[in-house]
Amino acid sequence: TEAELDSDVERIQLGIDGLDSMILGGIPQRSLISVIGSAGTGKTTFALQFLEHGFKDGERAIYLTLEESREAILSTAEDKGWPFREYVEDDRLAVVSMDPIEMANSLSSISSDLSRLVADFGADRLVLDSVSLLEMMYDHPSKRRSQVFEFTRSLKEVGVTTLLTSEASEESPYTSRYGIVEYLTDAVFVLRYVRTSNFQETRMAVEIQKIRDANHSRETKPYEITNEGINVYQQANLF
Amino acid sequence: TEAELDSDVERIQLGIDGLDSMILGGIPQRSLISVIGSAGTGKTTFALQFLEHGFKDGERAIYLTLEESREAILSTAEDKGWPFREYVEDDRLAVVSMDPIEMANSLSSISSDLSRLVADFGADRLVLDSVSLLEMMYDHPSKRRSQVFEFTRSLKEVGVTTLLTSEASEESPYTSRYGIVEYLTDAVFVLRYVRTSNFQETRMAVEIQKIRDANHSRETKPYEITNEGINVYQQANLF
Amino acid sequence: TEAELDSDVERIQLGIDGLDSMILGGIPQRSLISVIGSAGTGKTTFALQFLEHGFKDGERAIYLTLEESREAILSTAEDKGWPFREYVEDDRLAVVSMDPIEMANSLSSISSDLSRLVADFGADRLVLDSVSLLEMMYDHPSKRRSQVFEFTRSLKEVGVTTLLTSEASEESPYTSRYGIVEYLTDAVFVLRYVRTSNFQETRMAVEIQKIRDANHSRETKPYEITNEGINVYQQANLF
Amino acid sequence: TEAELDSDVERIQLGIDGLDSMILGGIPQRSLISVIGSAGTGKTTFALQFLEHGFKDGERAIYLTLEESREAILSTAEDKGWPFREYVEDDRLAVVSMDPIEMANSLSSISSDLSRLVADFGADRLVLDSVSLLEMMYDHPSKRRSQVFEFTRSLKEVGVTTLLTSEASEESPYTSRYGIVEYLTDAVFVLRYVRTSNFQETRMAVEIQKIRDANHSRETKPYEITNEGINVYQQANLF
Amino acid sequence: TEAELDSDVERIQLGIDGLDSMILGGIPQRSLISVIGSAGTGKTTFALQFLEHGFKDGERAIYLTLEESREAILSTAEDKGWPFREYVEDDRLAVVSMDPIEMANSLSSISSDLSRLVADFGADRLVLDSVSLLEMMYDHPSKRRSQVFEFTRSLKEVGVTTLLTSEASEESPYTSRYGIVEYLTDAVFVLRYVRTSNFQETRMAVEIQKIRDANHSRETKPYEITNEGINVYQQANLF
Amino acid sequence: TEAELDSDVERIQLGIDGLDSMILGGIPQRSLISVIGSAGTGKTTFALQFLEHGFKDGERAIYLTLEESREAILSTAEDKGWPFREYVEDDRLAVVSMDPIEMANSLSSISSDLSRLVADFGADRLVLDSVSLLEMMYDHPSKRRSQVFEFTRSLKEVGVTTLLTSEASEESPYTSRYGIVEYLTDAVFVLRYVRTSNFQETRMAVEIQKIRDANHSRETKPYEITNEGINVYQQANLF
Ligand SMILES: Nc1ncnc2c1ncn2[C@@H]1O[C@H](COP(=O)(O)OP(=O)(O)O)[C@@H](O)[C@H]1O
Ligand SMILES: Nc1ncnc2c1ncn2[C@@H]1O[C@H](COP(=O)(O)OP(=O)(O)O)[C@@H](O)[C@H]1O
Ligand SMILES: Nc1ncnc2c1ncn2[C@@H]1O[C@H](COP(=O)(O)OP(=O)(O)O)[C@@H](O)[C@H]1O
Ligand SMILES: Nc1ncnc2c1ncn2[C@@H]1O[C@H](COP(=O)(O)OP(=O)(O)O)[C@@H](O)[C@H]1O
Ligand SMILES: Nc1ncnc2c1ncn2[C@@H]1O[C@H](COP(=O)(O)OP(=O)(O)O)[C@@H](O)[C@H]1O
Ligand SMILES: Nc1ncnc2c1ncn2[C@@H]1O[C@H](COP(=O)(O)OP(=O)(O)O)[C@@H](O)[C@H]1O
Ligand SMILES: [Mg+2]
Ligand SMILES: [Mg+2]
Ligand SMILES: [Mg+2]
Ligand SMILES: [Mg+2]
Ligand SMILES: [Mg+2]
Ligand SMILES: [Mg+2]
Repeated sequence: TEAELDSDVERIQLGIDGLDSMILGGIPQRSLISVIGSAGTGKTTFALQFLEHGFKDGERAIYLTLEESREAILSTAEDKGWPFREYVEDDRLAVVSMDPIEMANSLSSISSDLSRLVADFGADRLVLDSVSLLEMMYDHPSKRRSQVFEFTRSLKEVGVTTLLTSEASEESPYTSRYGIVEYLTDAVFVLRYVRTSNFQETRMAVEIQKIRDANHSRETKPYEITNEGINVYQQANLF
Repeated sequence: TEAELDSDVERIQLGIDGLDSMILGGIPQRSLISVIGSAGTGKTTFALQFLEHGFKDGERAIYLTLEESREAILSTAEDKGWPFREYVEDDRLAVVSMDPIEMANSLSSISSDLSRLVADFGADRLVLDSVSLLEMMYDHPSKRRSQVFEFTRSLKEVGVTTLLTSEASEESPYTSRYGIVEYLTDAVFVLRYVRTSNFQETRMAVEIQKIRDANHSRETKPYEITNEGINVYQQANLF
Repeated sequence: TEAELDSDVERIQLGIDGLDSMILGGIPQRSLISVIGSAGTGKTTFALQFLEHGFKDGERAIYLTLEESREAILSTAEDKGWPFREYVEDDRLAVVSMDPIEMANSLSSISSDLSRLVADFGADRLVLDSVSLLEMMYDHPSKRRSQVFEFTRSLKEVGVTTLLTSEASEESPYTSRYGIVEYLTDAVFVLRYVRTSNFQETRMAVEIQKIRDANHSRETKPYEITNEGINVYQQANLF
Repeated sequence: TEAELDSDVERIQLGIDGLDSMILGGIPQRSLISVIGSAGTGKTTFALQFLEHGFKDGERAIYLTLEESREAILSTAEDKGWPFREYVEDDRLAVVSMDPIEMANSLSSISSDLSRLVADFGADRLVLDSVSLLEMMYDHPSKRRSQVFEFTRSLKEVGVTTLLTSEASEESPYTSRYGIVEYLTDAVFVLRYVRTSNFQETRMAVEIQKIRDANHSRETKPYEITNEGINVYQQANLF
Repeated sequence: TEAELDSDVERIQLGIDGLDSMILGGIPQRSLISVIGSAGTGKTTFALQFLEHGFKDGERAIYLTLEESREAILSTAEDKGWPFREYVEDDRLAVVSMDPIEMANSLSSISSDLSRLVADFGADRLVLDSVSLLEMMYDHPSKRRSQVFEFTRSLKEVGVTTLLTSEASEESPYTSRYGIVEYLTDAVFVLRYVRTSNFQETRMAVEIQKIRDANHSRETKPYEITNEGINVYQQANLF
Repeated sequence: TEAELDSDVERIQLGIDGLDSMILGGIPQRSLISVIGSAGTGKTTFALQFLEHGFKDGERAIYLTLEESREAILSTAEDKGWPFREYVEDDRLAVVSMDPIEMANSLSSISSDLSRLVADFGADRLVLDSVSLLEMMYDHPSKRRSQVFEFTRSLKEVGVTTLLTSEASEESPYTSRYGIVEYLTDAVFVLRYVRTSNFQETRMAVEIQKIRDANHSRETKPYEITNEGINVYQQANLF
């Protein structure tokens, strides 16, 4: 019966070596995915690699960055050997750099523009890097939450597989900065630093916190960022 | 005399394997139940399984979701082999997806609509998934508390067995996000992650924190989420 | 001389087995007592048992509940074998269920109504379950404190032995939610969960934090809630 | 030279057995003293005992209580065998019970009334029990601090040896609730609970945190409250 | 292919002995760099040494200080043997001391002035010491964040290699005081104190937290500040 | 070359035995110094001893106290055998007791009065005891910070060697109460309590956190306060 059930929603791969095999059966298409991690844990790399995997399958994608310039995103991808400039030229990729303050100020109209863009462009995957920078621009918690809620709802309606990167909370690596995206998304990946007690070295580890309707490993596995992107060592242990 | 006392209120089963046997004597019918847990701990699965148990006994139910679409809820249930679409067609189940912002803005009228719906529909069980998303939409703590208080009171008056899912507080897994539902509900179940000290693996454990007027186990037991739903390993130990 | 001093104020018993013998000499009559604990620790059971002890001695009492319906209180008591419905019929008990929001809004007039009721009814014991729900309805800390202060002062003037239940603070089990009742009451009992380090089991333990002008044990003792109410194992140790 | 220096300010004794010998040389007369502790640690007992020591030397005193009735204070003292009612009759003691809300609202006029009362009455010692209840009634931290500051300054000008009791902060037993009196007073005593790790027993311990211009022990010593008041076991160790 | 990719952006050296060799391949030119540390960890020294390295290569630079006088900066540099006064005379260095309050009040106009200055002056490196003092002057978090965001964006557009010093958060040495610069900058260096458990000694350690598009050591290495500036002991261990 | 560099700014001694030898080369004249510690750690004693050292060298000084009366300061100094009254009579010392509320309200005019006083009086050293009491009187963090910033800047311009005492933060002994003075001052000394784990005794320890442009010990050393002032045991260990 598992086979039957799995058949009705198509499942996709992230394209992160070692991590995809920790997800048993893939992530449902058109899901909302969040990647939580503090500065430098590889969220942007994760997001680019996630798109690259789609490109290799002939998909189209939109990258919405609130943190970096269009140029920086393209060159970071190219550094990893992913020909994002070519995708742009081939009209398979749109990289949009948006001002988070403007985005916060007119989120509902931007949200509907984005929905239209996804439809017109025929995007299969979408990235917002990072949702925390958007959240940060609201002063009132309830305003922030209702805005983020409406935004993620509209993304779900559009039906594009979406990855939101989010800063980790200062208190816990398992919680997003404002503690909401992990509840509004279908899948949550946690990237974290683990420091050894003798202050010798800082390692990086990934944990799958949730994937709606899917079985997945609950192990914490080491990963590295290299010239080829993120590599999860599924066979290794952190210590 | 225990038999006599137990006889005057009917007791129901949750339908969670292993957990029902930790509740000695069942949960009083028409109770308010809360399930507290962080993202991915299985609150939605718990709620669906709780309804499924009633359906098997010929009950009727309402599922009020603030987090997911109607469609998502139905397909999650079907993933687990629970024919929720059939229940809907048979008029035994109503799945209502509501906007938490609207719900927060007009809670008292929605509350009375809901009471009417429960009565008209003849619902035996009701789920609100999640109450935290509702609570989140208020800025002033006293407003939030008085609104949630009135809402739970009206549910008690309606007399339908109700399950509220709630996010855990960031500080403690045993406390709900806003620290009020555990006081307003008759039974509290805590779902939590337990991480091993060597960062190897994340386990899931359940504890019954309270059941008004009922004896229950005070042990913490491991559970898993599988294709058949939540399974509590009552015979096993966490470590 | 101890005998002489003890003679001028009458001392009462709580009626909690094992706990009364930890209080050396009883609690002064007409005291204000607070019971602090998180959800499910047995505060309501404690309060009912405290009244039942008085009823057995022919006393009269008022139970003011902000959390539960009148009916729920009566049936909880009856579950424990305490004939509260009979007491009501015999005009020895008044169970009043009040809306905490209304109570917060007009506390001073309710307070004087209550004083009158205590006098007219000839109540010997009074319970407010819980004071936290009242405190919760104020937004400004100084307003909350001054209101709670005035309320407790008026209770002291009425001269009825009063038990206030209070939620514990999220930070410490020894502190009430808003950190004021333990200072305004004459006796403080702390009910708490103690979790074993291997996550096996949750035990319950009671400590007497203060009793004005009385000697008392400073030990922490395990207790259980059974069909007969709260039972403190004064001879046992927690571990 | 020590003898010479000590001679110019008269030094007084607190009257707490065991604690006075931890203060090498006594507390300068007309000092402001604070006693910090959580509920039930014995602050009121400490304050009464401090006055009793003065009465035995023929002094006069004022006890200003914000927490308890005049009657409660008198009977607590008599419970310990200290004839406070006689002192009142002999015009050597004034016990004033004040409403903290009123006190907060008109602190400067009350402050000058108090100064006059101290002068007219010829009071040698003054107690305010507790300053936290006064501080609690202000919403704005700067208002609270400036009011408390002015109040303590006026007490210093009056030149009466004053003891302020203060609740401990929830975070640390060594800090007062609002973190200001320990800086404004000349001597600070900390009363605290120490709980054994096996949850067996709660002990009480005292530490002298500061005494301006005086040498004192820096040891933490156990104490008990008995029918005779507070007794510090200067020879014993806590563990 | 690594060689090819590395070739398109020029990489620079910080000029901190031992630390440059932990950065494999250098920091991309025109990056934004942040140095996070608490008081006295050497942020200002780091910033000066970073400029000195450029001067030795014939570069020009601007030092914008919010904390110290122009004079203090020059003399601190000279103390280390770096002839900053000569650079000023040779028109290769501009040291600007700005009032953080004014800067906060008119950040956008100052920001465009600064961009012009960088262009006119032909500055290769820019230092802002410290961004925390600027951030501190805003009361509303969203205002602070949007201002800092706009400011860093304008620096990126100018295209000057910029180093921002930042105070560490009180909670964690790995987080900046207001938790934003580490996300807005391309490279993050953490300077921290490590205290031995016996309170004997305080050591200083550096960790590279992130460098966009670059490989780097993840070790934590001890460093010292001497007459010659900061020296990282790349071969040594902290313990 | 070290000798050359050290020669251009004159270096002064604090006058605290044992501590001066931990500062290698002295503190630059006209520096701003902060001493951070909780109540009773000896900040006032430190400040007085710092002035006394100057008096012995024929210097002049101003002591600005916000916490104590002029009289209290003079007598505390005399208790330690430092003839402050003589210095006042000889016009070498001005002790000014100021109301922190007034000071907060008109800081900029007081600040310029103070600058003039320093110049007219020819003061070599200045003490403000404590800056926390000033900071405390502001409600808005940005107002507090900008005021304290302007104040310290004006002190730097006056060019008098200044010592600011500051309360420690409740969270960490290494941070000032409001977390700003350690960044605005040139040298930071931390006085702290260290409690032994068996609650036997409280020791006092000092650490030099920073001295701009100077080498210093990074050891934590025990100290005591005696009739002769503060004595740091540079040869001893804390444990
Ligand atoms: N078929 C399955 N097999 C194993 N685990 C599953 C399966 N379906 C769901 N899960 C687990 O359940 C989690 C989601 O449970 P859910 O009830 O939605 O949690 P919550 O509502 O608390 O966020 C997923 O993250 C996944 O770990
Ligand atoms: N008959 C019983 N047998 C065993 N435990 C019981 C029984 N009745 C109630 N309890 C326990 O008492 C708890 C509720 O106590 P209650 O006094 O309502 O707590 P509180 O008021 O502090 O929330 C329940 O959660 C359950 O654990
Ligand atoms: N006769 C007594 N014998 C033993 N302990 C007593 C006696 N009288 C009071 N106590 C203890 O003193 C405590 C109250 O002291 P009190 O000075 O009122 O504390 P606080 O003012 O700090 O709340 C009581 O909780 C009790 O533990
Ligand atoms: N003559 C003395 N002998 C020993 N200790 C003393 C003496 N005088 C003062 N002290 C100690 O110094 C402390 C007060 O120091 P002070 O400089 O006023 O501290 P702070 O200003 O940090 O509150 C007193 O609490 C006491 O412990
Ligand atoms: N070629 C590379 N080799 C090794 N590590 C790299 C390489 N490129 C980037 N990194 C690492 O990746 C980090 C940046 O990843 P990024 O995805 O931008 O993180 P985030 O978006 O979470 O801040 C850098 O700090 C660096 O440690
Ligand atoms: N010549 C020197 N020898 C040794 N240490 C020095 C020397 N000059 C400065 N330091 C150290 O550097 C610290 C100041 O560094 P600085 O860069 O100003 O720190 P920050 O800007 O982080 O506050 C001083 O506290 C001192 O410990
Ligand atoms: Mg990124
Ligand atoms: Mg869910
Ligand atoms: Mg209850
Ligand atoms: Mg008291
Ligand atoms: Mg600096
Ligand atoms: Mg002082």
